[in-house]
Amino acid sequence: MKKILIIGIGAGNPDYITMQAVKALNQVDVFFILDKGPAKEKLTRLRKDICEQYITDPNYRVVEATLPERDRHQPDYDQAVGDLNDAKQALFAQLIRDEVAEDQCGAFLVWGDPSLYDSTIRILDGILAADGPVFEYDVIPGITSVQALTARHKVPLNQIGRAVEITTGRRLLRGMPEGVDSVVVMLDNNNAWRQLPDADLSIYWGAYIGTPDEILISGKLAEVGEEIERVRTAAREANGWIMDTYLLRRES
Amino acid sequence: MKKILIIGIGAGNPDYITMQAVKALNQVDVFFILDKGPAKEKLTRLRKDICEQYITDPNYRVVEATLPERDRHQPDYDQAVGDLNDAKQALFAQLIRDEVAEDQCGAFLVWGDPSLYDSTIRILDGILAADGPVFEYDVIPGITSVQALTARHKVPLNQIGRAVEITTGRRLLRGMPEGVDSVVVMLDNNNAWRQLPDADLSIYWGAYIGTPDEILISGKLAEVGEEIERVRTAAREANGWIMDTYLLRRES
Ligand SMILES: C[S@@+](CC[C@H](N)C(=O)[O-])C[C@H]1O[C@@H](n2cnc3c(N)ncnc32)[C@H](O)[C@@H]1O
Ligand SMILES: C[S@@+](CC[C@H](N)C(=O)[O-])C[C@H]1O[C@@H](n2cnc3c(N)ncnc32)[C@H](O)[C@@H]1O
Repeated sequence: MKKILIIGIGAGNPDYITMQAVKALNQVDVFFILDKGPAKEKLTRLRKDICEQYITDPNYRVVEATLPERDRHQPDYDQAVGDLNDAKQALFAQLIRDEVAEDQCGAFLVWGDPSLYDSTIRILDGILAADGPVFEYDVIPGITSVQALTARHKVPLNQIGRAVEITTGRRLLRGMPEGVDSVVVMLDNNNAWRQLPDADLSIYWGAYIGTPDEILISGKLAEVGEEIERVRTAAREANGWIMDTYLLRRES
Repeated sequence: MKKILIIGIGAGNPDYITMQAVKALNQVDVFFILDKGPAKEKLTRLRKDICEQYITDPNYRVVEATLPERDRHQPDYDQAVGDLNDAKQALFAQLIRDEVAEDQCGAFLVWGDPSLYDSTIRILDGILAADGPVFEYDVIPGITSVQALTARHKVPLNQIGRAVEITTGRRLLRGMPEGVDSVVVMLDNNNAWRQLPDADLSIYWGAYIGTPDEILISGKLAEVGEEIERVRTAAREANGWIMDTYLLRRES
């Protein structure tokens, strides 16, 4: 039976990799390195560095492919993501079929943790549902950008005994979620926090967290909001891309 | 200046430890191992095992202490937690004062990630606020029980583009949170999911995740709820304690 590993490599610092992931890397025959967009080169390099640094027997292959991207002209967001996942599923199925021999082990290296805003688990389940048990797979957890954010700001994720919501920039445009005083926002292309009427919030913002380009800014949203917007725009222009995440907190 | 490290060691499998944590462990002069309750012995042993396995120069000290526990007769939960944190802060301040020399490095090994339902960051900030800059500290992220749960169930944490709430059993007693279809519940002593009227939920439940005692059960809540309750009660009796976490999902 073919074996596939979905390995979380942590979100930023190469040292976020776990011992479990290092052991898993050393069982792999074929690595699939699939990136896209303006950060592709950097993210691909980082994955190869991790392989070179932690794999003791260099007897493995790397297969690179470009991930299909979401159709930004499709107005229905869920539909666009669904179409994208179909295209990805076809690509992943073909890679596993053509590049992994029976009894071999293939691996997808996932940024951060495979459970958080990542489609690899869903895609492999989709292939198994469509094609039957053509492989078995396992998931290795990784440090998420949420943990990276809170560690670098040295701030708890939750208030004592309270809840936390993790959401997207797109959803934050509808306002602060009800019933929670701590909200982590990911995948925000639009500075969605700017729309929040509430001046009573603190923000802990981070870009490129854990990497040499890391930027951290925190404070009352009313006081640091403009600075974050300015720094974010400049960083995105300088690098051609940005990854940022932030925690909004209503202090009680 | 004294240096303190708050090191996340992952929640369960010793291999969840990151390379960053391993490097950090090797800088430490004094480890504080603070546990409590019926699982104390097991958790303390696990921390010592991690030190023994990953520290190359055995030239370090271990200081053990028993953590104060929450007063379960105090009806105001937030008050009880506040009192507990005061007692912990006094203990931590004394340990850092008495056991870490200037220019030495002390460390607290935190189960899972230090940002999630853990008070170490808050306590060190409390000491610095009360006593001035008597040390500097850093936070090393770790794999949370949330990542461990989703990896072992091979299930995404979020639905595509949707939000996730992380909450406590105590809060779940008020019902499923509004506006989210994925809810992770921690610190649940009362099988709070039993109270949920909604039969339209799936549950992914795990106890002692990542350890040799791991138990995983998933399915429609209406179908597996009773089994989870039975297994949970039996496991808690057999071991004298339980740590469990679950993801509730409204499938859309
Ligand atoms: C497609 S999601 C993948 C998340 C990833 N699986 C994780 O566990 O963090 C990408 C989003 O993660 C966040 N992100 C990932 N890495 C980051 C980093 N190093 N610094 C800041 N944000 C990051 C950003 O919000 C970005 O839009
Ligand atoms: C005080 S909180 C600490 C959480 C920890 N800092 C983390 O990152 O997971 C303790 C709760 O974490 C969850 N937990 C921790 N380890 C677990 C494990 N191995 N299996 C299941 N649940 C776990 C349980 O819900 C438990 O009540």
